[in-house]
Amino acid sequence: MNKVDPAQSVIIGSTRLYAIIGDPIAQVGSPRVFNPIMARSGVDAVLVPMRVAAKDLATAWAGLKAIGNFDGVIFTIPHKIPMTKLVDTVLTTGKLVGAVNAARREKDGRWTADMFDGRGCVRGLRDTLGFDPDGKSALVVGAGGAGSAVACALAEAGARRMTIADTVGARAGRLARVVTGTYTATAAQTGAADPKGHDLIVNCTPLGMKPDDLLPLDAGALKKSMTVVDIVLLPEPSKLLAAATAKGCQVMNGLAMLKGQAMEVSRFFGFA
Amino acid sequence: MNKVDPAQSVIIGSTRLYAIIGDPIAQVGSPRVFNPIMARSGVDAVLVPMRVAAKDLATAWAGLKAIGNFDGVIFTIPHKIPMTKLVDTVLTTGKLVGAVNAARREKDGRWTADMFDGRGCVRGLRDTLGFDPDGKSALVVGAGGAGSAVACALAEAGARRMTIADTVGARAGRLARVVTGTYTATAAQTGAADPKGHDLIVNCTPLGMKPDDLLPLDAGALKKSMTVVDIVLLPEPSKLLAAATAKGCQVMNGLAMLKGQAMEVSRFFGFA
Repeated sequence: MNKVDPAQSVIIGSTRLYAIIGDPIAQVGSPRVFNPIMARSGVDAVLVPMRVAAKDLATAWAGLKAIGNFDGVIFTIPHKIPMTKLVDTVLTTGKLVGAVNAARREKDGRWTADMFDGRGCVRGLRDTLGFDPDGKSALVVGAGGAGSAVACALAEAGARRMTIADTVGARAGRLARVVTGTYTATAAQTGAADPKGHDLIVNCTPLGMKPDDLLPLDAGALKKSMTVVDIVLLPEPSKLLAAATAKGCQVMNGLAMLKGQAMEVSRFFGFA
Repeated sequence: MNKVDPAQSVIIGSTRLYAIIGDPIAQVGSPRVFNPIMARSGVDAVLVPMRVAAKDLATAWAGLKAIGNFDGVIFTIPHKIPMTKLVDTVLTTGKLVGAVNAARREKDGRWTADMFDGRGCVRGLRDTLGFDPDGKSALVVGAGGAGSAVACALAEAGARRMTIADTVGARAGRLARVVTGTYTATAAQTGAADPKGHDLIVNCTPLGMKPDDLLPLDAGALKKSMTVVDIVLLPEPSKLLAAATAKGCQVMNGLAMLKGQAMEVSRFFGFA
C-alpha cells in the first residue's frame, strides 16, 4: 500500500490541493487516477481522499473554501446532488442532471461545478471497447446522480432507446422525462432492471460494494452480445462484471469510466 | 519540484490525512519531514500544506474536523495561539506556553493539542550540535508562540540565564515571568536583542523570510563561541545564519529544529 508511485508529485509547502469527497471513501480510485496525471503535467499538486458524512457536508465545504491552496474537488456518493446548492455556479450539464461531480475555484474565488460522470462513461466505452452508443438501446440501473449523468450522456451520444430502472419509481420517471424532453431522438422510459433487448447495460447503483449486496439486475438474462458497465470500483471485478464476463459479454469497470472522466475533469481543472 | 520522493506514501482511497496549517504556507518544511517518516513507518497517510488566513481559522477548523479521515494537524504562524481555544484539550506544555503546534483526533473524536516547538529545538541542539543548554545563558528573540516554547524548553533543559527580546515589551515580560515562575533555576529577564554575554542565540521571529527583512538582531555582536539558531526555513541559509557562520559560530537551521520536533510530534500522532 505504501510503495512509491513513479508518478505522484512530492508534497512540499507550495503544493496545491485537490480532493475527492464522499462517504464511504476508502474505495475511491480518483487519487491513483489523478495524481499521475498531475505529476506528468508538471503540476505541483496532489489529490487526497476526504471522508465527509452527508450531515457534515455544508460545514466541511465552508472549511475547505477557507483553505487558500485548495483549488478543486471531485464529489462522489452522497454529495453529488447536495453540492449543486453549495457552489456558486452550476454549468449546463450539471443543471440538466441536477447533480455535479467536480468543482473548481475560479480566479475571483467563486466555485463553479459541473457533472462529468456520464461523459466519462461514454468516453470510456469508445476508447476502451470501441462501443459507440449512437443508435443503440441501453438499460440504466439507478437514477441517482451517476445514473442521471450516464442517461443524459448516452442520449447526448445518440442512444435510440433507453430503459431507466430505480427502486424509487418517481426518481426513474423524473429522469426519463428530462432525457426525452432534452434529447428528442431518444425514447426513454422507466422499467424493470431487465437486460432483455438492450445492447448496453450500465449499473449506476452502489450495489456490489459490500460482500453481501444483491446484484443490481438479473444476471441470468445477460447475453454475450451485450456490453456491461459497472460503476462500482471494488471488488475488482465486481460480482456483476464477473457474471457478465462468464456470459461472454464485453465489460467495462468503474476504473475505465473514471479514466475517461479524469481526462474531462483534468481539462476542467486547468491541467492536462 | 515534482521529482519522486523515495519515501512518500502513495495516496489511495484509504489514505489518512494530516496537515500543516499556516499563512503563509509555501515555505513550510513539514511535508518533506513528515511524509518520509510516515512512509517508512508503513502508515497509509500523508501530510499536506493548507494555507488558512487568521480570520478564517475557526471556519476552516470546523470544516477539517468534519473530515472523517483527518487525524492530525501541525499549526504554524499565525495559528499557534488561537488554536488553544479551538481544540478540546490543551496538554501541560501547551498551557504553559499559551500556544500549541500540533493536535490529534482522539478515539472519541475529541481533539488534543500540545506545543512541541521548544522541545524540537533542544533535541536538535543536542542531536546535531552536541550542545546542551544545561547551565548555559541564552538570548531568545521573539516572544510569540515559537519564542515562548523555546524559552520554556531551554529552561526545562536547565538554562541558567535567559534574556527575552521582543518589540512588544509586554509580551516579553509576560514570558519572562512564566519562565521564572515555573523554572526557578532559570533567571529570565527582558532585554534588547543583543547577543553579548550569551552562549546560545535563538531567532524565534519570522524576520528573514522576506528578502528585504532586517536581521532580528545585531549580527556584529556575534562571537565565534556562540551557537546560533534560526527558526526561519527559507532562504537556506538565512541571512542571520550566513552572518553567524561568517563569524565562526556553530549554527542550527529551522529544518534541524523541525526534524527534532518531528520525532516528538510523530510519537504524539501515534506513529514512529
